[in-house]
Amino acid sequence: MAKFRLMAPGPAMIPEQVYRAMTEKVIHHRSNEFRTLVQEVEEGLQYIFQTRNKILIFASSGTGGMESAVANLFSPEDKVLVVQAGSFGERWTQICKNYGLSVKTIDVEWGRAVNPKLIEQRLKEDKEGKIKGVFTTHTETSTGVETDMQEIGKIVAGYNALLICDSVSGMACCNLETDAWQIDVVVSGCQKGLMTPPGLSFVSLSESAWKAHKKAKNPRFYFDYATALKFMEGFSTPYTPAISLFYGQREALRMIKEEGLPNVLARHERQARATRAAVQAMNLSLFSINHANNVTVINGPDGVNVDEMRERILHKYGIYLAGGQDSLKGKVFRIGHMGYCDAMDIISTISALDITLTEMGHIFNQTQGIKAAEDILKEE
Amino acid sequence: MAKFRLMAPGPAMIPEQVYRAMTEKVIHHRSNEFRTLVQEVEEGLQYIFQTRNKILIFASSGTGGMESAVANLFSPEDKVLVVQAGSFGERWTQICKNYGLSVKTIDVEWGRAVNPKLIEQRLKEDKEGKIKGVFTTHTETSTGVETDMQEIGKIVAGYNALLICDSVSGMACCNLETDAWQIDVVVSGCQKGLMTPPGLSFVSLSESAWKAHKKAKNPRFYFDYATALKFMEGFSTPYTPAISLFYGQREALRMIKEEGLPNVLARHERQARATRAAVQAMNLSLFSINHANNVTVINGPDGVNVDEMRERILHKYGIYLAGGQDSLKGKVFRIGHMGYCDAMDIISTISALDITLTEMGHIFNQTQGIKAAEDILKEE
Repeated sequence: MAKFRLMAPGPAMIPEQVYRAMTEKVIHHRSNEFRTLVQEVEEGLQYIFQTRNKILIFASSGTGGMESAVANLFSPEDKVLVVQAGSFGERWTQICKNYGLSVKTIDVEWGRAVNPKLIEQRLKEDKEGKIKGVFTTHTETSTGVETDMQEIGKIVAGYNALLICDSVSGMACCNLETDAWQIDVVVSGCQKGLMTPPGLSFVSLSESAWKAHKKAKNPRFYFDYATALKFMEGFSTPYTPAISLFYGQREALRMIKEEGLPNVLARHERQARATRAAVQAMNLSLFSINHANNVTVINGPDGVNVDEMRERILHKYGIYLAGGQDSLKGKVFRIGHMGYCDAMDIISTISALDITLTEMGHIFNQTQGIKAAEDILKEE
Repeated sequence: MAKFRLMAPGPAMIPEQVYRAMTEKVIHHRSNEFRTLVQEVEEGLQYIFQTRNKILIFASSGTGGMESAVANLFSPEDKVLVVQAGSFGERWTQICKNYGLSVKTIDVEWGRAVNPKLIEQRLKEDKEGKIKGVFTTHTETSTGVETDMQEIGKIVAGYNALLICDSVSGMACCNLETDAWQIDVVVSGCQKGLMTPPGLSFVSLSESAWKAHKKAKNPRFYFDYATALKFMEGFSTPYTPAISLFYGQREALRMIKEEGLPNVLARHERQARATRAAVQAMNLSLFSINHANNVTVINGPDGVNVDEMRERILHKYGIYLAGGQDSLKGKVFRIGHMGYCDAMDIISTISALDITLTEMGHIFNQTQGIKAAEDILKEE
């Protein structure tokens, strides 16, 4: 018997209350009861997004939300700049290319965050102001890196380009002040920091984004922002919404509100710091230089097959750790600590690593990782 | 105290077992456990779609699945033919136009099914074979009409056009033999006959459809069929799937398999016939000429405000009936009897109408509707 703990960078663990909320009866999406539900979900999201913008809600994965931004805000051959610092940055590039945009990239070494000055340089060089959008990734879970969105916000605000941020994994884990930092478009999803089973995506749009939408010629229907806004103004959706996930999301948002967003963010910071300290005390090295607080990416130690290690930990202790993506397959492993994750989930994960790495011949002082984690987690 | 009964043409009622299944813990979508789940869902869907085709599964409403067919199988300026016999036919037209297709329509009077010969005539007239697709709606829930897909299948098979069918509402309610009837593309959703809360769409594709996909230039990313197929071959999805809905869908598919598809279809036919007989015995008239067996559309009787009638029935008896869509708003009401609906749900609905219409001054013989329904429902 081993209880299942999903310590992956999404989907993440779900509170029991949220599962229970999803068993509420499906109601009709043109009823007043549903409108109340949508309104409550939107208010909860605005609190976490730190925005007064209307938030559009789609039945889709986060990637659907990402595509919606490209389809709704741009036209073929529009020039855009994409920050590529991992798999999710590359996804922006691919979506933009599929829609015929003219894409320039800033390629950042995996494990590092983009230097915001590089964005400024590119925008400055673009004397005719042809760059219409800058695509960024708030937290790049493939590499364990957080982007300095505040600084990038300041820079992009001085130019005519829209600032678009994928915060599917970052939202409610790492601070993102949509309005204060002037981020035109923020895309997120329900299944990570927002503690709901996957299937909803969220998009916040600034006034500038709405202006760009009016001119954008890329084809779209299901994700069309004007249609979605028309319905969202009456707290509904144009097409049948994922009603059960709305119930779950409402409950998760209530829990976040109750804990308080600053406390939620502090918990993520503390647990991330504890995880980093623990693995380093176990003679492991971090892959990332600019750490995100929702996932820790760790280099596989010499002589240990990381995927075998993950299998062992899953089977013996019920803890699911993620492997590396793309070029990092087999080279790193990733511990997600996002959303519904507490101090003892961190301790459990470190303990499972402690036992398993010892068995697999990695050289380090057993329990030193636990000690390092405990010293930080007790700050709570 | 009035128990809630969702007698709408989607979303529809959900079995308690399905709600319970959705409380299964969220697992990682790159795990073997998830692959088993996807495989079981796909097998269950193939049984109901009556196809050997791979079925692609997206986290989206049914409309997302509809758009996916246009985005993945056509290029701008491709000539297509759309059968417009209600709101959902018009949706096909709108999606095709948004993608720059050259759309010709067959406009059918609302309440009637298209005469398949009209499709044949259009295809014959197209001597150069430029029509690349024929878009149809299996059951048009806005009007309560079923389309003769078998006959249309025979006709379109003789031409080079793909036959595309929206069976979001029809699947598992009205017979649709995807392979035998040569329907190239069938789009459905989980929330109607398939008895699962909304949020999943399904697409079945024939070999001809896959060939068309290779040449199609419309932009897409999230719904890209080649990417989806690559992952579906390993029983997974490219982007984070709506895992809890997969659990629910698996359970619902088990229930349908256990009842047996022929029995499920016979139950829909019997309950639809009972509903039609009942309302006619209550001095009400049907809106549709060619009846679908998953929804009954009824003309509002003279002197009765149908929307007020629906409100009363909802508040006093907990039964949600749908109103008219688009041009039918305020003129008709719609009783959905799809998916998880039994004989006593029909009786309850007729009884609520019996009481409420009497109170609202409609002239008819009380209990005659119940009698007519009972006489048919007892055939079970």
